[in-house]
Amino acid sequence: MKYVAEIDIMPQKEILDPQGKAVKLGLHNLHIDSVGDVRIGKHIRLEVEAESEEKAKETVDTACRQLLANLIMEEYTFSIQGV
Amino acid sequence: MKYVAEIDIMPQKEILDPQGKAVKLGLHNLHIDSVGDVRIGKHIRLEVEAESEEKAKETVDTACRQLLANLIMEEYTFSIQGV
Repeated sequence: MKYVAEIDIMPQKEILDPQGKAVKLGLHNLHIDSVGDVRIGKHIRLEVEAESEEKAKETVDTACRQLLANLIMEEYTFSIQGV
Repeated sequence: MKYVAEIDIMPQKEILDPQGKAVKLGLHNLHIDSVGDVRIGKHIRLEVEAESEEKAKETVDTACRQLLANLIMEEYTFSIQGV
């Protein structure tokens, strides 16, 4: 069965996010002043062929740990749906 | 009241995603072969001060249109939660 994973990979909370700061400044320059903290990461949509949702989750978790996320500086979360 | 927006900005469906192809190849090289199509975009977490959820949505939509998303090549979706 085919599953689609929606993965968010964000900088860990303690890690500084200069990109986020730059975007916040940019928004304020556009007079969108009500914006506070901005954090920027990656969103990955990934198709997985698996026998069960459990197996699909295992595959996505392995993919995150081995390639997609830098576990020293990033944290990842994901949701999975059958399609 | 403070709201947190979770924004996903992805390449439009017709747009080629070389980054996604490279990640797919990388996963296959790690023998994670059950992975099919991979699409990579940005995930932005943004705090907004607003009188209502409706106002917060307006602010986030404006931020996406004016700065965060390149509407020629990207599409954006977001969810908002009061904190």
